[in-house]
Amino acid sequence: MRKSDRSLIKLFNPDSVAILGASRDKRKIGHLVLNNIIQSGFKGKIFPVNPNSKSVEGLVCYAHYKNLPVTPDLAIFAVPAELAITLLEDVALKGTKNILIFSAGFKEAGLEGERKQLKLQFISKKYGLNILGPNCLGFVNNFEKLNATFSRTSGEAGNLRFISQSGALASAIFDWADDFQLGFDEFITIGNKAVLNENAILRYWLKETKKHKFVAGLSNCRPIGMYLESVEDGREFIELAKKISLHDPIFILKPGKSSGARKAISSHTGSMVGDDAVLDCALKEAGVTRCDGVEDMFDLAKFFSWENAPEGPNVAVISNAGGPAVICSDFIEENGLKLAEFNENTKAELKKNLPEFASVLNPVDVLGDALSDRYEFAINTVLCEKNVHSLVVILTPQIMTEIELTAQKIAKLAKKYRKTVACVFMGGKIIRKCRDALESSKIPFFRYPERAIMALAKMWQWKKWTKQKAEKRLSFHLLTIPNAAKQIIKKVENDKRSVFSGIEASDFVGACGIKTPASRIVNSNHEAIGFGGKNWPVVLKTSSSALIHKADSGNVVTGISDTNKLLKAISELSRKIARLPKNSNGSIQIQKQIFGVEVIIGVKEDKNFGKVLMFGAGGALAELISDKNLAILPINKSSAEKLVSESRVFPLLRGYRGQKPCAIEKLVDLIVKLSNVAQSASEIQEIEINPVIVTEKEAYAVDPKIILKK
Amino acid sequence: MRKSDRSLIKLFNPDSVAILGASRDKRKIGHLVLNNIIQSGFKGKIFPVNPNSKSVEGLVCYAHYKNLPVTPDLAIFAVPAELAITLLEDVALKGTKNILIFSAGFKEAGLEGERKQLKLQFISKKYGLNILGPNCLGFVNNFEKLNATFSRTSGEAGNLRFISQSGALASAIFDWADDFQLGFDEFITIGNKAVLNENAILRYWLKETKKHKFVAGLSNCRPIGMYLESVEDGREFIELAKKISLHDPIFILKPGKSSGARKAISSHTGSMVGDDAVLDCALKEAGVTRCDGVEDMFDLAKFFSWENAPEGPNVAVISNAGGPAVICSDFIEENGLKLAEFNENTKAELKKNLPEFASVLNPVDVLGDALSDRYEFAINTVLCEKNVHSLVVILTPQIMTEIELTAQKIAKLAKKYRKTVACVFMGGKIIRKCRDALESSKIPFFRYPERAIMALAKMWQWKKWTKQKAEKRLSFHLLTIPNAAKQIIKKVENDKRSVFSGIEASDFVGACGIKTPASRIVNSNHEAIGFGGKNWPVVLKTSSSALIHKADSGNVVTGISDTNKLLKAISELSRKIARLPKNSNGSIQIQKQIFGVEVIIGVKEDKNFGKVLMFGAGGALAELISDKNLAILPINKSSAEKLVSESRVFPLLRGYRGQKPCAIEKLVDLIVKLSNVAQSASEIQEIEINPVIVTEKEAYAVDPKIILKK
Repeated sequence: MRKSDRSLIKLFNPDSVAILGASRDKRKIGHLVLNNIIQSGFKGKIFPVNPNSKSVEGLVCYAHYKNLPVTPDLAIFAVPAELAITLLEDVALKGTKNILIFSAGFKEAGLEGERKQLKLQFISKKYGLNILGPNCLGFVNNFEKLNATFSRTSGEAGNLRFISQSGALASAIFDWADDFQLGFDEFITIGNKAVLNENAILRYWLKETKKHKFVAGLSNCRPIGMYLESVEDGREFIELAKKISLHDPIFILKPGKSSGARKAISSHTGSMVGDDAVLDCALKEAGVTRCDGVEDMFDLAKFFSWENAPEGPNVAVISNAGGPAVICSDFIEENGLKLAEFNENTKAELKKNLPEFASVLNPVDVLGDALSDRYEFAINTVLCEKNVHSLVVILTPQIMTEIELTAQKIAKLAKKYRKTVACVFMGGKIIRKCRDALESSKIPFFRYPERAIMALAKMWQWKKWTKQKAEKRLSFHLLTIPNAAKQIIKKVENDKRSVFSGIEASDFVGACGIKTPASRIVNSNHEAIGFGGKNWPVVLKTSSSALIHKADSGNVVTGISDTNKLLKAISELSRKIARLPKNSNGSIQIQKQIFGVEVIIGVKEDKNFGKVLMFGAGGALAELISDKNLAILPINKSSAEKLVSESRVFPLLRGYRGQKPCAIEKLVDLIVKLSNVAQSASEIQEIEINPVIVTEKEAYAVDPKIILKK
Repeated sequence: MRKSDRSLIKLFNPDSVAILGASRDKRKIGHLVLNNIIQSGFKGKIFPVNPNSKSVEGLVCYAHYKNLPVTPDLAIFAVPAELAITLLEDVALKGTKNILIFSAGFKEAGLEGERKQLKLQFISKKYGLNILGPNCLGFVNNFEKLNATFSRTSGEAGNLRFISQSGALASAIFDWADDFQLGFDEFITIGNKAVLNENAILRYWLKETKKHKFVAGLSNCRPIGMYLESVEDGREFIELAKKISLHDPIFILKPGKSSGARKAISSHTGSMVGDDAVLDCALKEAGVTRCDGVEDMFDLAKFFSWENAPEGPNVAVISNAGGPAVICSDFIEENGLKLAEFNENTKAELKKNLPEFASVLNPVDVLGDALSDRYEFAINTVLCEKNVHSLVVILTPQIMTEIELTAQKIAKLAKKYRKTVACVFMGGKIIRKCRDALESSKIPFFRYPERAIMALAKMWQWKKWTKQKAEKRLSFHLLTIPNAAKQIIKKVENDKRSVFSGIEASDFVGACGIKTPASRIVNSNHEAIGFGGKNWPVVLKTSSSALIHKADSGNVVTGISDTNKLLKAISELSRKIARLPKNSNGSIQIQKQIFGVEVIIGVKEDKNFGKVLMFGAGGALAELISDKNLAILPINKSSAEKLVSESRVFPLLRGYRGQKPCAIEKLVDLIVKLSNVAQSASEIQEIEINPVIVTEKEAYAVDPKIILKK
């Protein structure tokens, strides 16, 4: 059975829970979790299981799972790894399908642990068990009043859901949420993800979860935060995330960008990290917000949970200090937002009621001596303005500033209009006192203007994504690769090679309907001269399965425009071929030289997300400008057009400074063809054409490279 | 007299102070400042001045300044703008040279205010007065125990100095510093900078300031923080900052990157903002750290003040949670730092004493159940390691974590070794309690790993700068512009033009010793054909003082390789010339076409920093890649080489993929020549050559544009 087939309702909303390893010892996990379950107000039945106790915390304690009077919906394992495996079969035989395993000592703990995890997976499969963990902190369901963790948690119920692969980070989030009065709906830690991974949880939330009533004063969505150290089954993740993101924002913190970080992860959870750029592309496609750090994640958690995302990019700023307002403006412009332009009525209204030297443009400077009523007036006026989608209120503690009173007035006003409001109160000790007033009213409070803007910008990015018609994943019908192309693959496979020679690669893409320049193998000087006469200038290159990067080793001669140069180049390349290893299919290829804009198109296989296409500037430009535009395959014409038009090389293709435009529709056609070929020919590991040369009339695959899977 | 000639010692370290406008009314600034001075423990004499009171706060109050029994070192104006101007002359006549003016209503308040500020400057000049403000918050000198502000401030003495143009931001910093137990040396707000600007303060700190004893537990330097909304006299700023930065780090927050922000500033302080990229370049040259936001500034204030900057880039990380350690690693690699590699001894020592599954590589994972002694052992071991320059200790609140005890142990250990240490304790309520332990021991505390790393990276950037021999400003001897070049300037001036025609510009740079391609004016078809015959392929272009961007309007025809094409192009351009406005010096220029790498070199006049040179990729590339490399002139050969080698176009110049390298030494020579010309010919507002074409043997100025000052 597929692990996705079982319902998770009774795992996260059980009517009865057993705790294996329940203990009286207050330092033990088996005590902590039992205590948490009781304290959280769980309404279902609780069964401690432990052969060494008769009762724990006033509850009857059972020696063996099989002795339990009923079959619990959920069994929680607070026992060492080895024992967990032994007991798992007992639990399964009793009929319990939902398991939570805290125990460490599995995959994260070397080879021996890995063996244990395999055993766990085997038993899960055999009995059809949902297993959360191992090596996790458990979960919290605040609406069911169930704290099934061994950590201090925030018991406040809210609209925020969370998935954390790390238990340590979860405990930091709990402590932080407690401080900020941030409530959760369900908070699930997934640890080693032996059976249930993030996709299983997302599927549960998408299809099964009970829709809890919205809590007053919170935002109109159920945001999902995620901390992941690895992503599994990326294609499914995209599908699920895309569906959820249409209504509820997902924000994710996923470390591992750097090579050093990759090392740390592999020694940490034993999971491997895919290419970060591919992940970025996938998240973008799925409308998922990526956090730039822990602070970003915390800020977004609070903001998404408390305030509706803005309906547009226009931000109004009200401040009692010029400097911080200017800083705010900087960050607004740098992060894809706009300073709202007020209409004349608003300006007149502000002018009439604010002091002479106050600024009635945006940012509104209410001046240093502003008391709470002046703030109140300005906020009311600005929030009524149609061009304003969100508001940031900045306060610095001047000697006369009514900090707490202003906070209270903002709290009252902010929820009146359905616009996004954030407060930036700058300072330390004095400011801290008024934070509570704002946070208990669920108004996001920030200490620094840039933090409010960064979070606001990401909220708007998400909202914008939901407004654009989210493209459905393309249904993709595997093409039949033409026979001529199949023959070439077969030939390379028969030779027990994985690398195509230049000519083979050229013939392959040609057979698939992709245009290549006029070309042939040089069998004699005479023949070459004949070809040259019809095609000057020509290019000569070595074709060999032993050469992948020809140009670097002097195996490409361009600009050959007469017989002399041609003969010289032939003898030069012949010498190079003589030096190639045996069986490397060395020969010389002559090709008409094409002039135009050079681009690169490549498809690689990503471990998590499958075939991914890259498009960008080619030739010399490829090394000068970072122009990597990724798309997860398949890709259709309109996505390919978007890919091209958003690239950095596009201005050249469109026709730079009076040059005629290139045949962009031919380029798009080539991209779609290549992506179809790459998807359909499952034997191919990597295919790259660098350059594709785009002229006014055509797009030519000049130098394809193809590598088969080994 | 220059405003820089007077000593500021008695302004900031007065033996006697008079307060004009001293008041009993507790809401008045005249009361607040008097009270602050008394409360801060000022040891000198205090003279309230106010015709309406006999005594204020138990001190004799004088009706008129002239009645004072002595001449105070410092007069503080807590009176409205108009009155301040009236009283200023009285104060000057009494002999007081140092003035602090709080009053608003000057330049920031429209035309009328600007007039008042000019009057202030006039009186200052007449009597040789040092004036701080107006429109400022005053200053604090914690070692002299003088709080000459009307704000709540932090009274703790420390090594941090600060200049703030904004009083509002200053009050936020005071509140924040109070909360974080951060002490100041001198904190000076400069407001409208009518007389004393940031350079005057830096000069005072560089040459005059009393060197206060270092406070135990703080860093070995006297950091300077700055918040500026405008920079004045940029050249002097660079000089001063460069000297100070060798010993004491300067970090600056300067908003105004975006156009919207510029608008907000001009409505705020009336000051204009220079080009932000030029400022960045100047700060880099002067070793000044630029803050990316308010949080960055606060983080650096604390970190620079409490910890010595790291002596190298290698960071060790110790954590009780894998996830945050990985996030840390990401930020370390992204910000120019390195994860330290431990030597075998260290690894063995860690392996021996840490639990089996702990990671003894860097990051060191002491595991979730680490108590304070395990942290203590790991910190000791890692700080002894030679390859470690700095340490970040991460803690997440697990159920068994000894948070406060661990904080105490870190505090004890951190100051033992002379290495940079930061703590990242993640969470909220529980974590908050232990913050005090760390901060009262002056250990920087962060809530998020990325914040510690960002600040650490900037500290290392500064330290690295001090280690590289800071280049002295080049002494520059004005060149004599050759007569032939002078004649061209004169001709353009006589025509009452500011724009050179293409031919004039070409001739000008040629006369200055810069190589241009073979070229002449087309007087007849016959002559042009003769030139072509010797130079195919050639380029034809329109030369006119009415055309600055020729290529965009089709006024350049390239690749002319035979007589037919040439004649066709001549008649085409002739038609275009006929359509130009009268007196625009229209003619056709024929030029040998040069093939090579195209770069752009330009010099512009920056308001704050004078002549600035830009170098980067030219031609089509200029629009595709952002390759702006700036240098503040003058520039010598080695700086020019550095500019070229750090550019993004450099890989092309060096020889891309088997191409022969370009004549980089000729390019460098051209850059130095052009910079000399631009510096020496003060008539020139802007000079740009786009492209300079660099071949294997030469660098040609193909298309110079020159604009004179109006």
